[in-house]
Amino acid sequence: MRFAKGHGTENDFVILPDPAGEFGLPAGLAARLCDRRAGIGADGVLRVVRTAVLPGVATPRNPPAFHPAATTPRAGTAQDQDAEWFMDYRNADGSIAEMCGNGVRVFARYLLDHGLVTGPAFAVATRGGVRQVRAGADGQITVDMGPVTILGAGRAAVGGLDRDGLRISVGNPHLACLVDDPLDKYDLAEVPVLDPAEFPDGGNVELVRLAGPGAITMRVHERGSGETRSCGTGAVAAAAAAQCWPGGDTPGQEQIWQVHVPGGELTVTLGARTTWLTGPAVIVAEGELARAGWPPAAELRRRC
Amino acid sequence: MRFAKGHGTENDFVILPDPAGEFGLPAGLAARLCDRRAGIGADGVLRVVRTAVLPGVATPRNPPAFHPAATTPRAGTAQDQDAEWFMDYRNADGSIAEMCGNGVRVFARYLLDHGLVTGPAFAVATRGGVRQVRAGADGQITVDMGPVTILGAGRAAVGGLDRDGLRISVGNPHLACLVDDPLDKYDLAEVPVLDPAEFPDGGNVELVRLAGPGAITMRVHERGSGETRSCGTGAVAAAAAAQCWPGGDTPGQEQIWQVHVPGGELTVTLGARTTWLTGPAVIVAEGELARAGWPPAAELRRRC
Repeated sequence: MRFAKGHGTENDFVILPDPAGEFGLPAGLAARLCDRRAGIGADGVLRVVRTAVLPGVATPRNPPAFHPAATTPRAGTAQDQDAEWFMDYRNADGSIAEMCGNGVRVFARYLLDHGLVTGPAFAVATRGGVRQVRAGADGQITVDMGPVTILGAGRAAVGGLDRDGLRISVGNPHLACLVDDPLDKYDLAEVPVLDPAEFPDGGNVELVRLAGPGAITMRVHERGSGETRSCGTGAVAAAAAAQCWPGGDTPGQEQIWQVHVPGGELTVTLGARTTWLTGPAVIVAEGELARAGWPPAAELRRRC
Repeated sequence: MRFAKGHGTENDFVILPDPAGEFGLPAGLAARLCDRRAGIGADGVLRVVRTAVLPGVATPRNPPAFHPAATTPRAGTAQDQDAEWFMDYRNADGSIAEMCGNGVRVFARYLLDHGLVTGPAFAVATRGGVRQVRAGADGQITVDMGPVTILGAGRAAVGGLDRDGLRISVGNPHLACLVDDPLDKYDLAEVPVLDPAEFPDGGNVELVRLAGPGAITMRVHERGSGETRSCGTGAVAAAAAAQCWPGGDTPGQEQIWQVHVPGGELTVTLGARTTWLTGPAVIVAEGELARAGWPPAAELRRRC
């Protein structure tokens, strides 16, 4: 089985090309691929599947390419007909996430590097809907992240410290906590404690600090992956939260935020109807899995 | 540039085949390869070089294959003529280590898988001298780790807790601390504090607990790499320390210790004149580095 490894601002992914939908991506395989010592190591896995083959995948001989419990990608809609490729995404623990902003950008880089799409602008199907992507001449890749919704106030205990934040949906659930103290004082090795009433399925937690006009610094704990060096939807949530900061909001205009994450620099553009995430995305290696180094197939076929 | 990734009891390595000694392994390249998000990710790098080409490597056009300050491998001695391959090893931070017990076993697995050695028994040249290796029919690989030397008592602060131990040399320096309390109570995320008078070049620290007759459990903090799931020389040091435990010593006989590490099971055999380390070693993936995903060559050529 071939694979690639790449990252966007050091949010890293194993990419599995599976254009005909032959292999699937069970939780056991995803978790083992992401194991940083016994596997390849990554924050998540991106399986590259043609949208055209998806309806035929769920047969007894070929198990479903994505977990039946997950949101089915909107195959067959007018939008999806424009998306030749489906991004089948799993977190490092094998669980499914609806969307991954840096993941889409790395996925797009893989498609571009392999000539699987033409032109700098194209669409990618995800469980969170179809996303428009554009590659800039400067090597940066922008993805339409869809609308961001501020749901209300929330609260988390981060390394034993209680912090207020905003509950924000970017397709997946976030709590963005605006803080005044240095970000390095927080312990994100432990899983932040969220209120199950506010986050019945858990969520990502961002610690956000204003760094200057239109600029923020953030750290993030991703549901299922632990602290990561970057999170695309987290950057969007952080920018949306910063916009709610006194003086941050300028109604009716596009807001452009530079978001400094531990792994680099992202740009978030908050528009009236949607948001865009821009940043670097690179492939660092490609190759083949060596059969002897992996557990028996039965173990890898484990489902969530 | 081609690469492989493999592990021995989840002590993992990037393997760089460089038979003709063309590429070298500067600290900047090693550190970037081992970066778990921006690179491939590993506890260390193993460059595979023919011993025959080593004298020719240190020319102005081809920078030295190993750091001039490091111990020169004993090229040209009777022993080295038997070792066709030299293991050029660096830790995850780019620093040089004299030897790496799990590294030699993974290096041997790579040579065997690629038909670069014949027969189940062969020699590998390292900065710590030539090591004899044997592959068992059960897939386990044994390496002669050379003599182990108990240097005397020592002390370390591990996550704020002071612990007594034994200073032990297995080619590289160790402090093996025999403890009675559960190993999971120790914080090895921080670098243990050693006495610079006892460890002028730093050292590896093992926490060792007796698990039964001839059986120990250990955790290890490796100099330059942090806590790892296994350490070959650390397992030997831990077994040698356990042998000094009251009742552990049986003079004149071979002592066989099962060593449980977070990444699996190793066997250490303590003989009168040398020691052997036995355990699994597998290659999980092979491929090529993708040029676009790496920093400029000048940055990778950085020396220690």
